[in-house]
Amino acid sequence: MRVVVPFGARNPKTRLSGLFSAAERAALSRAMLDDVLETLDAAGHDPFVLSTDPLDIDHPVTVDERPLSEAVNAALDPPMAVVMADLALATPAALERLFAPDADVVLAPGRGGGTNALVTRTPSFEVDYHGASFRDHRDIAEAAGATLATVDSFRLSTDVDEPIDLAEVLLHADPDGRTRTWLAAAGVELAVTEGRISVTRPDA
Amino acid sequence: MRVVVPFGARNPKTRLSGLFSAAERAALSRAMLDDVLETLDAAGHDPFVLSTDPLDIDHPVTVDERPLSEAVNAALDPPMAVVMADLALATPAALERLFAPDADVVLAPGRGGGTNALVTRTPSFEVDYHGASFRDHRDIAEAAGATLATVDSFRLSTDVDEPIDLAEVLLHADPDGRTRTWLAAAGVELAVTEGRISVTRPDA
Repeated sequence: MRVVVPFGARNPKTRLSGLFSAAERAALSRAMLDDVLETLDAAGHDPFVLSTDPLDIDHPVTVDERPLSEAVNAALDPPMAVVMADLALATPAALERLFAPDADVVLAPGRGGGTNALVTRTPSFEVDYHGASFRDHRDIAEAAGATLATVDSFRLSTDVDEPIDLAEVLLHADPDGRTRTWLAAAGVELAVTEGRISVTRPDA
Repeated sequence: MRVVVPFGARNPKTRLSGLFSAAERAALSRAMLDDVLETLDAAGHDPFVLSTDPLDIDHPVTVDERPLSEAVNAALDPPMAVVMADLALATPAALERLFAPDADVVLAPGRGGGTNALVTRTPSFEVDYHGASFRDHRDIAEAAGATLATVDSFRLSTDVDEPIDLAEVLLHADPDGRTRTWLAAAGVELAVTEGRISVTRPDA
């Protein structure tokens, strides 16, 4: 299936500013994008990037400066999937579960009320990523009379916005993936303090 | 399968103290325990409670005051599962996936490095919930020569410790379950502010 991977190229991952410079955040978000594209390729799908800016990358790119929901709706041509570019824990097996249900709309909830990945097989569905998008997408599918399935995946529920999300990457992502390799080169390490995990960058 | 559900009855869920009194936190954690036991019953399993204190409840109870890992290891009698009492998003379908893999040890990661549910079919595995337990349990299984499977479930990865976890409950848990019913009676509502979700209790 064709898969659109939205990518915000301008000042990405600001909530990681305590750990990384702007250039480092750009490199990290690019590593995650490359991992997601490669994982989609490995799962047998056909991804393209929907980017706010031109991008030098080995996959098709559509540039659209508009806000996320507008740009995605303009690019939607069902059957099609939308997979976020920062799903650093995604594996081919986890993504297969997104494409498996025979439903008009399939949603993979993100932690915090978001929608980290979806499939639409109907032109009557559109996206709205503002606010608690999982609930909104459920309502939009229902209002459109579309059949709905959800995917119960920890890997797809984990997008990378906060330092704690990097701890999930260190614990669960492919050790040979670009994201883990980049984090290792940046000196990011798992820290366990009083039973809670976080990350540190001792040499930075 | 027999399933041990550890339950800390003393001053539970302290990270929710900003929202609830001690008595309310006790009632909420009891509602979650009852939901988890009922979900395990519905999935065809045989749960008992491993509690720090005597409990008036319609399921078998073993009382053990020792720290969590010690008490669980004393109760383990494989084949057996360990399922945390605060998995308010658990469904029979999600739990079925825990029991499905034909492996000596099956782990369901919790967000934040924990292990929210596991199955052990070998006497050479023991638990260690201190710190990043998912990584430790993986190492313990490996050192024991046990075959290992993991379960990729958003529902099983979500335990309830922080206010943000209650937002997940309001978005994804069974609306007719005891936990959702208790939260509704307590006046807890989903709040969406600047694209992030949280919960409020406007009348408290």
